[in-house]
Order: sequence, then C-alpha cells, then structure tokens
Amino acid sequence: MSRRSLHTPAPDAASLRARIDRARGAAADANTDALLIAPGSDLRYLIGQAGGSFERLTTLVIPAAGDGVPALVLPKLEAPGYADVPTDELGVDVLTWVDGEDPYRLVAGRLGKPGRVAVSDTMAALHVLGLRDTVGGEQRLAGPILRELRMRKDATEIAGLRKAGQAIDRVHARMGEWLRAGRTEAEVGADIAAAIVEEGHTAAEFVIVGSGPNGASPHHDVSDRVIERGDIVVVDIGGPIPEGYNSDSTRTYAVGEPRDADVAGTYEVLQRAQHAAVAAVRPGISAQDVDAAARDVIAEAGFGEYFIHRTGHGIGLDVHEEPYIVGGNDLPLEPGMAFSVEPGIYQAGRWGARIEDIVVVTSDGVEPLNARPHELVVLDS
Amino acid sequence: MSRRSLHTPAPDAASLRARIDRARGAAADANTDALLIAPGSDLRYLIGQAGGSFERLTTLVIPAAGDGVPALVLPKLEAPGYADVPTDELGVDVLTWVDGEDPYRLVAGRLGKPGRVAVSDTMAALHVLGLRDTVGGEQRLAGPILRELRMRKDATEIAGLRKAGQAIDRVHARMGEWLRAGRTEAEVGADIAAAIVEEGHTAAEFVIVGSGPNGASPHHDVSDRVIERGDIVVVDIGGPIPEGYNSDSTRTYAVGEPRDADVAGTYEVLQRAQHAAVAAVRPGISAQDVDAAARDVIAEAGFGEYFIHRTGHGIGLDVHEEPYIVGGNDLPLEPGMAFSVEPGIYQAGRWGARIEDIVVVTSDGVEPLNARPHELVVLDS
Repeated sequence: MSRRSLHTPAPDAASLRARIDRARGAAADANTDALLIAPGSDLRYLIGQAGGSFERLTTLVIPAAGDGVPALVLPKLEAPGYADVPTDELGVDVLTWVDGEDPYRLVAGRLGKPGRVAVSDTMAALHVLGLRDTVGGEQRLAGPILRELRMRKDATEIAGLRKAGQAIDRVHARMGEWLRAGRTEAEVGADIAAAIVEEGHTAAEFVIVGSGPNGASPHHDVSDRVIERGDIVVVDIGGPIPEGYNSDSTRTYAVGEPRDADVAGTYEVLQRAQHAAVAAVRPGISAQDVDAAARDVIAEAGFGEYFIHRTGHGIGLDVHEEPYIVGGNDLPLEPGMAFSVEPGIYQAGRWGARIEDIVVVTSDGVEPLNARPHELVVLDS
Repeated sequence: MSRRSLHTPAPDAASLRARIDRARGAAADANTDALLIAPGSDLRYLIGQAGGSFERLTTLVIPAAGDGVPALVLPKLEAPGYADVPTDELGVDVLTWVDGEDPYRLVAGRLGKPGRVAVSDTMAALHVLGLRDTVGGEQRLAGPILRELRMRKDATEIAGLRKAGQAIDRVHARMGEWLRAGRTEAEVGADIAAAIVEEGHTAAEFVIVGSGPNGASPHHDVSDRVIERGDIVVVDIGGPIPEGYNSDSTRTYAVGEPRDADVAGTYEVLQRAQHAAVAAVRPGISAQDVDAAARDVIAEAGFGEYFIHRTGHGIGLDVHEEPYIVGGNDLPLEPGMAFSVEPGIYQAGRWGARIEDIVVVTSDGVEPLNARPHELVVLDS
C-alpha cells in the first residue's frame, strides 16, 4: 500500500536542531514569516528523515526566528515512519491529521495570517495551491533560503560524501569485469547498476555508458549499441548511500587500443584541465574561476568548442545542488562546499571523454573524494 | 550526469492523439484556457513518455479545444530522451530552450494572457511559482480535469494492467522460496524485491512483509523482526511493468500452523468480505457501495472496528489514482475503471490479514486481474 521507507542513519539531534535554528534565522533574514518544507532532501537535512508521501500533506512548518515553535504536520497513518525523528530534542511539535480533516487548516492554525511564506522548491502543486487557498500569504521558494545552509557541509556530511566517494571508486575499480567488446552499453550498465548497490549504495541513481560516438553526447545514458574493440567509453555513475549522500564519478576507458589517433593527445589536455581546476580550489576563489581554470586549458589547446557544459555542480543529499561551478557564478568558495569537477571534450560523431571527481573545500585548499587514477584506462578485452 | 531513462513501450500515436484531444475538450469544459503538464504519469498518459527532469522546466502546453496548437517545452539537452515521441503525428510542436533562456517566457508566448491555467498536481513549486510570475492567470490543478480521462482505461491500458497482474501473481506463487521461520522481514523483502524485477517489473515499488504483530499495521513496510513459526504474514507487493502500468497484490501467509486459535475463523470472514466486494462490481454501482459490500460482511461478523482503511484505490500509471473505493464516494462505476479490492482485519498486537486483487469493470460485470488462490497459504517451513 505504501512506498518502501528505509530506516537509515541520521545525524545526531544536536546537529539537526542547529540546522533548524539556522533555517529560522535565514527565514528572518529573508523577510519570510515561515518555511513550509515538503518531503525530500530539504526535510531530510532538517529532521534526518526525507518522508515520501505525495498524496497526503506532510510538511515541516518552520516559523522565522522569534515567531513560534516549528511543527511537523503529517498524516496519522504515516506517523510510524517518523518514529526515529527525535522531535522533542529538536523542539518540533507533531500535528497528525486523518483522512477527512483539512491539513492546510492545521498549517494555517500555526501561522495565523502570514505575509510571506516560502515553500520547498520540490513541493507538489497539489499542496502549493492547497496552502495558497487556505494559509494565504505571498508564496515564494524556500530553495534560495535553504541553499545558504545546505551548501556549507558540516563534518558529518563530509564524512557521508567521503564514504560515497569510496563506494563508487570500488565500482570503477571493477570495470574490467563488465566492460568488454561485444556487449551492449545496456548490458554493461545493468552490471554496473548491480555493483553500485553491492558496493554500498541504496540505489544506482544514474548509469551512463557512452561508447564510441555516444560518448560525445554528455547526457547519453545507455543504449543497445554493441561496444567494439577500439572504442572510447565514458562511464559516469553514482547514487546515494544509506546516509543519503551521493556519489558521482566519471572515468573514461578504452576497450583495447583506441581506434582514433587523436585520443591520446586530446585526453592529455583533458587530464591537465581537470587537474588545473582541482588545484585551483581553495577558500575565497570564485566558482567561475574554478570553471575557468579547466576551460582555459582546453581552450588554449584548441578544443574550447568541444567542452559544452559547466565544469561542475554541488553535491550532497541531492546529486545536483549549489554551488554550480559555471561561468557567471561569482560565489566565493568556503570550507565545507562540495562539488564535482568534470570537464569533458566531445568529438561529435566519433568519441568523447570526461573525468569527474567530487572535491570538498578545506580550510586551506581542497580534498578530492575520489581516488581512482585519472589516466585513460585501457581494458584489454 | 542525468537520471537513467528507459526506452519503453508506448501506445500508438492515434491513441495518444485521441487522449490529447479529449484533454483539450475537458479543459474547455472546465473553463480552463490551458493545461500545463509536468513530467510524470500525466505526461506519459498523453505523449507516451514520462520525462524526468526536475531542475529544468519540461511541460506540455495544451490549450483548451479551439485555442491553438499544443507544444512540448523542454530543455534542449534533454531532447534526445523524447526522440521516440511522435510529435508530428500527435500535432504537438516542440520548443526547446537552453541554459540562460527563460523557459517560462516560451510558455507565455504560446498562451498570451490566459485567464485560468491548470498545472499538474505533481508539478514542483519551482515551476508553479515560475509560471505564476511569468505566465500569470489563475492557477488551478489539472488533476481533477485529467482524472476524468485517466480513470476510464482503454483496451491498451487494461492489457497493461493484466500483464502486471500476471507478473505479480508469479511472484506470489514463489513465496515459499523465501518466506521461512528464522529469517527477518527485511531479508525476505529483499528476495521478493529481486523477484518482482525478475518476473517482469522495472522496479519493486513497494514491498510490505508484515509478520505477526507487524501484520496488524496496514502501512508497515519491512523490519528486522525475525519471522517465527506460527506467524501470520501479510505480503503486499507491486511495481510498474515496462509499459508503465502497476501491479499491486496482497496475500496472507501462515508460516507453519497458525499460533492463534482465532485465525481460521477470522480469515474466513475476510475471504467472504473480499469475494462479496468483487462480486458487487458492475457498471452503475457506486464506489461506496463496493466498499460497503466488503465492510458489511466484516461488521456483521463483529470485526468492523478492525477494518481500519478504505476498501480500495484506482490503479494505472500510478499505484494510487481515481477511483477510490471508499465510503462517501458516490461515483458510479463504468467499464474500464480499474482498482484494488483489499479489505483487511487487523488484531492489534497479534496479527493481521489482507487479501487484495486488482479488478476492472467490464461491460456487464468484473474481471479480476489476479488469479492466485484466496485461501490462507500455509508454508510449512
């Protein structure tokens, strides 16, 4: 009858309470009377439990600092799924409702007549419009408020990302078991997906196996193309570990000796570009300058037009979150920010290559969370 | 970088075009200028492809009948994922956008100054508020408009549900391989989940293994409880097949002879209640009368207070959709409506039982889509 929920490790109550307090302060700073948090990674960040219901309203009501006590509004029949949430220690009231009651009135009862309320970016229209009609207030997005908190990871979160990085490294280390000439990308991808779970993830969130010309399309997934000897293959994989933090790592493989004569020279440029961007990461440098560090190397070698996406994205409880490592983002990096560094060079119709590590900004530099070699790995199938 | 998309069977273009035409008519009937359909099962119903992006706007713009041509607005880099959608045959324009452009302006450009627009119930607040600010108009939900279409299944859809029912029946038929004393619910659940995929589903969407007292909690999932000889075990499982249609079937098992002396008598009542509800299904009867047919049998036997949920829910591209088989729903059933019939009796602290089949209303009666026996299955472990 219900979706499967997994009992999974959560941060200690003191950490969660500190996050809720920071969220209340951030709401006040943004002149917002309350945050209304839907199930998903925002909720997991704040109470250690992501929830999961869509049909019935579940929302964490967080009044701005000085404006009353937070409350978790949830359907009574889903209350057992929140049994592990230490609501007393978090200073959060629990308000359950049953079918036939109006959950939006419960929210309204906590907030009175708010001027501005911020809803989770992921909240479903069903509830956005239900809250609009009953709670009122000017609705805005909670994402820009919460991202200020979520993009600065604490030690527990970095430990989670480190563990995820090690898990996906173990999958890349086993690539020779599956990636061979004569198999389809989809067959290889299915084996990789199983190994992602075996090595400690709760799911294979994404599996890209881009062989030959498919490797030149950065958003390719898998296909029925049969991998041939001489192919270059981009393998971009990841998923969440039980703590909720995600891995995301790309390595590029050659199945036997590369067919195309330009591979070695081009790949060497890519490798230098990725190293340059990682080496540039330190507190105070802007996100766009990290992007430029990779892009400049590639452009100087004459391949600028073949690097057709941003250099990276933040990662944490979501695979894609702030900060984005992209031209135009002048955000200065701070210790605790975690993101991918993943330049690529794409030769349309022939082959592509990408190297991707997750890195975290430290007090005086950078810690890469993936440790597999960056060289083109030749699998002699 | 992206979520994995699966190339999956879609209905023929003529069926899809007919659905889009009906949606345009339904929008006009509801005095709504346009439907804005987000990725998910509504989109899959209309174009055969569910999509999947959250961060970047993808939406099918469906003007009400007589008001212009539908358009699929999507990020250019995700366009390859829609290559199988026969947009020409569907009469749907495709409008792609790239990072840096404002996708909401693309929608506004198609709609002018709409008075009322309906957005998918599942559309994320990120896009609901983005459309509010740029497109304007009074926003309402598209769900109530589309449910009129989606709850009346065509032959292709019923074939999908039939195939899903047969797949989950094959899993229940194998239950003796896994359900044994000495194993935990979670261990059994993991084996069941693997079998759900082996038998033709794309995912194990939910797996409930409620043993002993856990079976008395209808929304229990799995736990680390070790199954004991004499336990009654509720197993409620399902997921989608590649065509997108879902299975959902519950059977109740005994691990060896039941410990509690009241099991046989109580289970017999449940079995009669489930049969009575299925037998009541025919065109013209109301949803609430089907609910009452099960509830009356249980109440007359003195167990009314132990049947603590509705009798059933509609099923199709979503596991839970209209029509709901519940007191207060006076909707008259029509041929093509498909839903679960799943009464339960829950003896708090001791044991519970539930029997669930999916059924479809035919021109003169009912077709059950699950065929496993309804008797309490004693697994002699």
